[in-house]
Amino acid sequence: MDSAYDFSTGSRAQYEVALPKAKDFTDHLNRVTKNRAASTLKELYKYQSVPGMIVMAGGIPHPEVFPFETLSATVLAHDAFPLDPPRVPKKNKSVLSWLFSLPKPTISFTIPKYAPKPTDATTIQLSSSLQYAAATGPPALPLFLREYVSKVYRPAYADWDVLVNVGATDGWSKIVNMLVELGDAILVEEWTYPSAENTFLAYECERVPVKMDAEGILPEILEKVLSEWDEEKRGKRRPRILYTIPTGQNPTGATMQLDRKKQVYEICSRFDVIICEDEPYYCLYTGEWTPKGSKSDRSVLEQRLLDSQKKEGPEGNEAYIKSLPPSYLNVDTEGRVIRMDTFSKTSAPGSRLGWITANPLFIERLTRISEVSTQAPSGFATAMTTVMLQQWGFDGYIRWLRGIKATYNMRKTWICDAFADTFHLEFNQNKSLFPNGTRTITCYSRQEPRNRWDEKRDAHHKPLVTFTPPTAGMFIFLGVHVSEHPDYHDLVKKGENATQILVQKLWTNLADNLVLFAPGWYFDAGGEHAIGGNGYGYFRLSFSIATYEETYQAVERFAKVLDKFFHVK
Amino acid sequence: MDSAYDFSTGSRAQYEVALPKAKDFTDHLNRVTKNRAASTLKELYKYQSVPGMIVMAGGIPHPEVFPFETLSATVLAHDAFPLDPPRVPKKNKSVLSWLFSLPKPTISFTIPKYAPKPTDATTIQLSSSLQYAAATGPPALPLFLREYVSKVYRPAYADWDVLVNVGATDGWSKIVNMLVELGDAILVEEWTYPSAENTFLAYECERVPVKMDAEGILPEILEKVLSEWDEEKRGKRRPRILYTIPTGQNPTGATMQLDRKKQVYEICSRFDVIICEDEPYYCLYTGEWTPKGSKSDRSVLEQRLLDSQKKEGPEGNEAYIKSLPPSYLNVDTEGRVIRMDTFSKTSAPGSRLGWITANPLFIERLTRISEVSTQAPSGFATAMTTVMLQQWGFDGYIRWLRGIKATYNMRKTWICDAFADTFHLEFNQNKSLFPNGTRTITCYSRQEPRNRWDEKRDAHHKPLVTFTPPTAGMFIFLGVHVSEHPDYHDLVKKGENATQILVQKLWTNLADNLVLFAPGWYFDAGGEHAIGGNGYGYFRLSFSIATYEETYQAVERFAKVLDKFFHVK
Repeated sequence: MDSAYDFSTGSRAQYEVALPKAKDFTDHLNRVTKNRAASTLKELYKYQSVPGMIVMAGGIPHPEVFPFETLSATVLAHDAFPLDPPRVPKKNKSVLSWLFSLPKPTISFTIPKYAPKPTDATTIQLSSSLQYAAATGPPALPLFLREYVSKVYRPAYADWDVLVNVGATDGWSKIVNMLVELGDAILVEEWTYPSAENTFLAYECERVPVKMDAEGILPEILEKVLSEWDEEKRGKRRPRILYTIPTGQNPTGATMQLDRKKQVYEICSRFDVIICEDEPYYCLYTGEWTPKGSKSDRSVLEQRLLDSQKKEGPEGNEAYIKSLPPSYLNVDTEGRVIRMDTFSKTSAPGSRLGWITANPLFIERLTRISEVSTQAPSGFATAMTTVMLQQWGFDGYIRWLRGIKATYNMRKTWICDAFADTFHLEFNQNKSLFPNGTRTITCYSRQEPRNRWDEKRDAHHKPLVTFTPPTAGMFIFLGVHVSEHPDYHDLVKKGENATQILVQKLWTNLADNLVLFAPGWYFDAGGEHAIGGNGYGYFRLSFSIATYEETYQAVERFAKVLDKFFHVK
Repeated sequence: MDSAYDFSTGSRAQYEVALPKAKDFTDHLNRVTKNRAASTLKELYKYQSVPGMIVMAGGIPHPEVFPFETLSATVLAHDAFPLDPPRVPKKNKSVLSWLFSLPKPTISFTIPKYAPKPTDATTIQLSSSLQYAAATGPPALPLFLREYVSKVYRPAYADWDVLVNVGATDGWSKIVNMLVELGDAILVEEWTYPSAENTFLAYECERVPVKMDAEGILPEILEKVLSEWDEEKRGKRRPRILYTIPTGQNPTGATMQLDRKKQVYEICSRFDVIICEDEPYYCLYTGEWTPKGSKSDRSVLEQRLLDSQKKEGPEGNEAYIKSLPPSYLNVDTEGRVIRMDTFSKTSAPGSRLGWITANPLFIERLTRISEVSTQAPSGFATAMTTVMLQQWGFDGYIRWLRGIKATYNMRKTWICDAFADTFHLEFNQNKSLFPNGTRTITCYSRQEPRNRWDEKRDAHHKPLVTFTPPTAGMFIFLGVHVSEHPDYHDLVKKGENATQILVQKLWTNLADNLVLFAPGWYFDAGGEHAIGGNGYGYFRLSFSIATYEETYQAVERFAKVLDKFFHVK
């Protein structure tokens, strides 16, 4: 847990200087990005700090006319969320009593217009935060972020840097603006986040889906796509960008571990592909779900790491960081990874605050792009977030993330338990939905005669839905066995898109019964599928927002709708 | 002062329905903008509000894990700034005592995580503000903005709307992204804001400067440029966009009144040009400067309006709104005006909060662009700003603007008075700097023998600098008579760029003497000049930030540097 940056001085630690420097990726910049000039007015900045200088150069208002004199906040304490909440919430009159209604410890702070030490790099004051500022934001925030990146992601090259933005959507939009030419091809996971696609589809870009399993994209498929790319036949250059969500992938929930990342990185390096890792769910890596009363098949070491994570203090913090899947940055010796982080899941989405970690060339060009678009993120957001982080401290922030993670783990357990209590489950049956030995859960109706389950399974039992219990993020990606529907084969014979027709019908039935899932087809990147495929319809279920009772209600309603839909007797 | 929108219900008032609807400007959208699809995930929103629906469709965190429990602010009262501050600050030990050190009245508010009436359109609560949200922002803010646009700008067509953004730079960037094709030509003022140019220059756009006077662009020049445009010769289509800063233009300080706007609008309509009016300084329209001891040449009616503006209450508020130069929106019967407003000058630049007013087609496309880039502005900024506006109320906000305006007027008076006290002034002498009968002030050194000024002016007197006292904004655009410099003609003979060499030398002399002005060449749009031209070098002086004492110091240092530079004996 060395720090590449000394938080108090902002200087890089010695050891990191020994790492290689980033390669030159100039030829990845698009034409417009190469054209971008530094903001000419900003050149004046260097003169402005000369002592005694009367500055009449900038067009900035006097802070005395800012209406905001002080801003204050009450924020939860860094340890407000328990590390090991009970599996079932305690019953109480209030549905959310045990977790949410009890007052949690809080801290308060006030940000003045003028702070006592205005020139300290860590100072946040409204006269600066609410003033025009460099697109890099208030120095105190990148200072904190560099310490975080250095300690948690440990990039494998020396001269990386961070740049704040107004959230990962903005970050990705700026990356697309920096690298993409009209009509380019961009590598994506076979199921992916449609809003990320919308960013580049307008530029007439072709998405090139790569098949995946429960760890994400399959290296052999990626290699095949790239090595067999025929620029003449395709009418466009080989993809130079991979957009990927390695942890708690949206929508599949897939999480990629270190070995797979090494393989993907090696291929991307060979074919000169920039890896854009979008990691909103990184801190929500929760590990596997174990059914009630089952024994886990974890090794002794794995179990020890898990137990350590329930402890307060440095041991627990270190165990948590160790448990996180290493970032692509951790294998990035060349500087070809652009990582997107956001405060949306770790603080609040409405902050519109995130950051990019990348090589110095990309950071410089992205700064130019920011200067003529968003400029710095809102000073309200950076001031509030920075002071909160400072109040918690680095270790406190890690403890906060562990509390958040435990909360998501609890919610994930709720929904998996709800499936276990509502359906009859069979494990590891449907290899076709998640290949490569992924743990899967197939759900059967409890309406089917119970005693039959003691017999050898036979054709009478209809598998209804199958999913892999998520290890991160906030989603379950659930495959519906629409091929088991009585009308399926007739529809297929008629040449209809049976899967789409039936899954859409089921989705509407569900909405009519007051359960709203996200339709899987929203996330379909349009290629052939390794996960699922024909005969399987998909829903993405988010477990981030429903209460314990709502979660059970939703799964029970889902079971009833499924019974009716599949004509289960 | 009718309102097109009823603030409490958000519905349009009857009278505005009688106005024409916007024309169809679809053919102004560029190729990428035509490609943009609505964010598919957002389609789910309509189902989410069904009562009893268990929503597992979105990927949103539970507000309980937002660390922010409450946000509070202490803000200045709407009437914190006097309407008629004294011309010279009262002396005190503290340099800023009279204006700034006295405690000003404040109000305080706290925004809870959960408000009592969460579904009211005007409710601001952190569980919503800090959550993912539509790109249109929290409904309460556009409600306020529509009332403001309706009452202050009074657009001349019915179906305009507003869209929030993260400041005017972001707004302009999105407009460029919406309308501009690579290589387009864009109309700008002959002197203009370089950051606005940087936004489109990367797209290999050509700026087409239009000559101006103290009211801004000259209609006859605009018409000439458009009517004589030879698409074949130029290799590009006729300009379809005008970027303009009509009030307190940056850098010239020019302000355009209604009659001129009508002429420009008519030409733009005839040649199908979209008018993009960027109005950061609109509320800082302060009117003319009258030297100490001089009588104003205002008419009785003008004087009455000015006196009314010093009164508290509705009469003063109405006089203020009446005194503002009508927006291009006010003559826009077709919906071809895109207006950019920002809270940067009226609240604080670090808010990163502004809005666009435009026709419904443009608003819809800009919303799509926002969805894949910034999304909604930061909830910290919208929550704080909206509640502040609600606390002040509409009339209170107008009173706040009047206080701000009075403060800028005071600062403008300081710097003009400083010139009057430091130089010998002659009025309306140099027509060539600001054509069309603009009031100009030419400054002569006080080092020249005083008694000579009683004589008929002769060649011994070197005019040093000339400017037109600004009527809005925060800048003086000051022309230096570099052709009076002893080396000027020698340099010209040698074929050097004498103006540039000498003004750059003067700028450096000034910086060495601790006065930093913005160099005029930053703002040169690269065409022929009606304002100034060869033999004149320019500086832009901002009077928004310096204290009274600093203002005098700066002007005095400037005078000394000028004397030395021009070898005045």
